[in-house]
Amino acid sequence: MSESTPSPGFHLAIDAMGGDRAPQIVVQGLEIAAERHPEARFLVIGNETELRMLFQSSKHAAACTVRHTPDVIGNDMKVAAALRMRNASMRLAIESVAEGEAAGVVSAGNSGALLALAKVVLKTLPGIDRPAMAAVTPSARGDLVMLDLGANVYCDARNLVEFAVMGDVFARSVLGLTAPTIGLLNVGSEEQKGDDRIREAAEIIRDSHIGPQFYGFIEGHDIGAGTTDVVVTDGFTGNVALKTGEGALKLIGDLLRQVFTSSLSGRLAYMLAKPGLDRLKEWIDPRRYNGAVLVGLNGVVVKSHGGTDAQGFAHAVDVAMDMVVHRFNERIREGLGRIVAAGALPKDQGKSGGPRLAAAR
Amino acid sequence: MSESTPSPGFHLAIDAMGGDRAPQIVVQGLEIAAERHPEARFLVIGNETELRMLFQSSKHAAACTVRHTPDVIGNDMKVAAALRMRNASMRLAIESVAEGEAAGVVSAGNSGALLALAKVVLKTLPGIDRPAMAAVTPSARGDLVMLDLGANVYCDARNLVEFAVMGDVFARSVLGLTAPTIGLLNVGSEEQKGDDRIREAAEIIRDSHIGPQFYGFIEGHDIGAGTTDVVVTDGFTGNVALKTGEGALKLIGDLLRQVFTSSLSGRLAYMLAKPGLDRLKEWIDPRRYNGAVLVGLNGVVVKSHGGTDAQGFAHAVDVAMDMVVHRFNERIREGLGRIVAAGALPKDQGKSGGPRLAAAR
Repeated sequence: MSESTPSPGFHLAIDAMGGDRAPQIVVQGLEIAAERHPEARFLVIGNETELRMLFQSSKHAAACTVRHTPDVIGNDMKVAAALRMRNASMRLAIESVAEGEAAGVVSAGNSGALLALAKVVLKTLPGIDRPAMAAVTPSARGDLVMLDLGANVYCDARNLVEFAVMGDVFARSVLGLTAPTIGLLNVGSEEQKGDDRIREAAEIIRDSHIGPQFYGFIEGHDIGAGTTDVVVTDGFTGNVALKTGEGALKLIGDLLRQVFTSSLSGRLAYMLAKPGLDRLKEWIDPRRYNGAVLVGLNGVVVKSHGGTDAQGFAHAVDVAMDMVVHRFNERIREGLGRIVAAGALPKDQGKSGGPRLAAAR
Repeated sequence: MSESTPSPGFHLAIDAMGGDRAPQIVVQGLEIAAERHPEARFLVIGNETELRMLFQSSKHAAACTVRHTPDVIGNDMKVAAALRMRNASMRLAIESVAEGEAAGVVSAGNSGALLALAKVVLKTLPGIDRPAMAAVTPSARGDLVMLDLGANVYCDARNLVEFAVMGDVFARSVLGLTAPTIGLLNVGSEEQKGDDRIREAAEIIRDSHIGPQFYGFIEGHDIGAGTTDVVVTDGFTGNVALKTGEGALKLIGDLLRQVFTSSLSGRLAYMLAKPGLDRLKEWIDPRRYNGAVLVGLNGVVVKSHGGTDAQGFAHAVDVAMDMVVHRFNERIREGLGRIVAAGALPKDQGKSGGPRLAAAR
């Protein structure tokens, strides 16, 4: 609950050693982020010698405080092994949030380890059964928020309702919307479609304080169309859908590149249409959407893609700063409080899960 | 099992009344299909007066035998109501397959009704627990087969294994591949990813006769990349993934259209790159992928998109003809026989489903 205590010393703790090209990319990304957020103070955790060297040429070294640790959680490390590393840069960064030193954390390291450590160290917000992974993705009607993107392979009705509440707050904080519309991803838009848990979730959401914003069931193509501002789904479907969409965009991008490079007339056409094509390319640039947020925890946790570059990492820092500045977690707590007060969501339902759902996990 | 009896009178029974612009689009589509398959004989079921009028200007009316029925299953009709319509064009078309009059059926009508009627009238193939919806979709490495696309909201390990066997036969029949590679859609490629049912399915497939073709787990972006020739998944995930991919392609198509029409230089660029851009457009044209096959039934059942045009409907007929000519269902039976004989798949496992999986349905 660090972000609700009066101003922790640091805005963000940074796991400097996570990601494919850490710590170089991390320091370069911080350089860009510090330029955009002159007020921000970062606690940068990792190998001090390497970091000092990288910060030598930095214009914003003053915004960063380095804390040394020699231990790093590898990308392929099993979660159980990662949980045993008491001094890993990722763990120390998360702990600094738990201890109120920083308001949030950004890491480009091992996703499974980050999720597990964040749950163990920060714990879920009161009333939240399970945290979810949320991110912004492009659509024909502007950016939208999608969750869960893989934190939970199986989700019950209660989880989906919690995701809807958190997605609402996310869209308000990060996208700046006042009454974001919310859709529940399904195999059809008719009321009888899907399974019990999804129909039950729809009913609870409809009766809650976010009910007026609830659009109902949406389908896969509604993501690209931007039918709603928030797309709620379980972690398995969300992960597959996000990556399928990215894959389709990459496929068409590669094919277009061929068209515009394989012949003289193609190259000439590219030069003529360059401004429009470059805008389009920039708009769907995955770096612009980097930074998935682990929502539902006592602290802001942002996961950067491990393979991103400095621009991408800086964007993940932007997302984390947005969450901190907009007191994201306090607003989730308020939203959940309203849904529980209205009696729509039994307070203890998530603990047991019910025999049907618990058995299927 | 009509396609194994010596030559039924008709290659395909056609539900002339299904789809948004039936029967016009259906008759126009048959005109195109008959041109491509001069040997084909179609049993066309629907309103005789309307059909006779439409066939008046047809060059291929001789290939089509019209059978009258006044009843039509509406697009929004509930499944229970549809099942009670004894003389609906869709039902009579499916019954003609059950009675050995036609080897397969094509309908652009109500998907839920088609699935339910096909199950009731045709029954599943021996050894198959549940039919699946399969279709061809584009990728960077050529067309691939994906299933299930929505016939089953929840699938257990046995279902996924059956889908893999059917997907293998589908890829051989429709894509003409000799040893298609098979991937199981998951949230990560590492062995420990996903839930029990998906890990169990992977183990059974690995030990079966299609084991050498099994690539392992794939992720959403592997669909566009074409990492494997067959993508196996449950009906919920498959439906969402397919529609998400289509939505992403549509999004980028719309944005490109803007680039190439909003300025003079854009229009000039389009003219220069036209051959390449048109090829690309044609390649991702949804009509070229129209025709989802309901696999695992005693008879070939192909679902055309309800909103497609004559070209799209003709493509669905092409798909059905491929299945009939390649004796698709006999080959599935052979494949399943091999997997059961090898002891990998207990013959009766699918009937009970096991307490864990049955409870979660």
